[in-house]
Amino acid sequence: MSDTDDLLLSSWRDTPTRAALVEFVERVTGDGPDAIPPEERIATFDNDGTLWCEKPLPIQLSYILGRLAGMATEDPTLRERQPWKAAYEHDNAWLGGVVAKHYAGDDSDVKVLMRGILASVGGVAVDDYAQGAADFVNGTLHPTLGRSFRDCAYLRMVELLRYLEANGFTTFIASGGDRDFMRPFASDVYGIPPERIIGSSNALRYDADSDVLAYLAEPDVFDDGPVKPIRIWSRTGRRPIVAGGNSNGDIPMLQFAGGGRPALRLLVLHDDAEREFDYTTGSETALGRAADDDWTVVSIKDDWSTVFADRSA
Amino acid sequence: MSDTDDLLLSSWRDTPTRAALVEFVERVTGDGPDAIPPEERIATFDNDGTLWCEKPLPIQLSYILGRLAGMATEDPTLRERQPWKAAYEHDNAWLGGVVAKHYAGDDSDVKVLMRGILASVGGVAVDDYAQGAADFVNGTLHPTLGRSFRDCAYLRMVELLRYLEANGFTTFIASGGDRDFMRPFASDVYGIPPERIIGSSNALRYDADSDVLAYLAEPDVFDDGPVKPIRIWSRTGRRPIVAGGNSNGDIPMLQFAGGGRPALRLLVLHDDAEREFDYTTGSETALGRAADDDWTVVSIKDDWSTVFADRSA
Repeated sequence: MSDTDDLLLSSWRDTPTRAALVEFVERVTGDGPDAIPPEERIATFDNDGTLWCEKPLPIQLSYILGRLAGMATEDPTLRERQPWKAAYEHDNAWLGGVVAKHYAGDDSDVKVLMRGILASVGGVAVDDYAQGAADFVNGTLHPTLGRSFRDCAYLRMVELLRYLEANGFTTFIASGGDRDFMRPFASDVYGIPPERIIGSSNALRYDADSDVLAYLAEPDVFDDGPVKPIRIWSRTGRRPIVAGGNSNGDIPMLQFAGGGRPALRLLVLHDDAEREFDYTTGSETALGRAADDDWTVVSIKDDWSTVFADRSA
Repeated sequence: MSDTDDLLLSSWRDTPTRAALVEFVERVTGDGPDAIPPEERIATFDNDGTLWCEKPLPIQLSYILGRLAGMATEDPTLRERQPWKAAYEHDNAWLGGVVAKHYAGDDSDVKVLMRGILASVGGVAVDDYAQGAADFVNGTLHPTLGRSFRDCAYLRMVELLRYLEANGFTTFIASGGDRDFMRPFASDVYGIPPERIIGSSNALRYDADSDVLAYLAEPDVFDDGPVKPIRIWSRTGRRPIVAGGNSNGDIPMLQFAGGGRPALRLLVLHDDAEREFDYTTGSETALGRAADDDWTVVSIKDDWSTVFADRSA
């Protein structure tokens, strides 16, 4: 490693967390017994809550609700049916109930929401969907942070991506979110090209006559929990040695890292109500594992001198 | 493009085919109306019969038959059941019959063979499978060419991969063959890393308690024909502008290339009985499309000054 590479982490405060990152990278890139060759330096990061903000709603869900509301504007009959009704009426109570029921083990409304989501993409060409996603992320304001969604990326994590790449790592996003929603902005916002975006997906169909590749109204893969290691292997052919997440759904990915070799497991802790959000719901088990197994917890409050970029708009 | 880049094609003869490759690359990398930015320069290539030899049997099938024979050596009861019986007895007539029936529209024996293949990988850890594949490709002689399987790669196609990369392309393999069979040798033989290998796959399961990622005895994706465009999009998020294949199963991939932009579609023609093989079975429709739609046909006999590397063993 170059002596100046860790300047790439200059907006990380000088804390034990930052020291742990640098120590790990120096160890695996050095010539000691823990050295790992560059082609085996794979780093995977969750997206929502790890690389960008996921509150008050995951940004992708905001996008989907906008699409559903648009469908209900076109077709008034949809306004009487969930999830279009809630989207059209901006009924956050119904949506909050979906999440509350989910945490209580009742996914009946999740299924209603999923049916709407799938109906909203069925028949849509991949290029049209990508354009819509990019326009939404670039052109929509976060409801409370006073900045566009594209400026809700955690720039300290982007610094970490660059630091790892400067040290021979290949970085990937491995998210439970929709792969094709992330791709259109991930190059610009994170510097990660489309082929290194792993995520959930809807089924596709290629029509040779029209030369159109479009979504079916069917799910393909839901890339969360124990599916993440499988998708990471499927896409990269290797185990990561750096894995970063923020919630219980990331536990299998973090555990999968290493495979008998050194591994750095990062968990982003949302503890900064002033600059971002303060919550642990959905992350309790992961934080317990971090404490038990010495995973590295990144405190937004303590470890980052700033959270977001200056607003670009 | 550098003026010397096409020296990378120095073992291609000075034919219209070579001229078509260079003309296309110069056109999309120049500053004319057909210029395409580097991040959109995606090139995808089939493997069997396009990047390496697929006769008298696809090399992966030779590997599988060896595994099946090994199972029958361990368990004598398998020797009475297909496909283990044929593998154990080296009964090429049965295997030839599978292919002949397939071309006649009868896939009953293909199903028997597939059941054996899936049984042979069920429960096998990904690392063990990878090691077995690498050992097989490096250590097994081709039955007629007098060289190891790893030396059955077409070095003129490897030159083409390097030529494209030197011109800002990102290269991928998009094969109907098994992704995890190709990955262990593709870095060495083709210079393509595991994350850029697309292919068929078996289902996987990650067991968190044992930290083992292993195959299930179930298929996941069969990456051929109309599935190739879907898998290419799923893995790369873009359409290729260069696509190369050799058989009817590659037609949808070649058609998918471009999407309204310039595209180079290559079809490798096996017309060299002396140095490789001479056959068109399974490629008739593709060759018809090439003639009708001005796809670029690569003649092994006419376009390549040599076919294989000097033997490395």
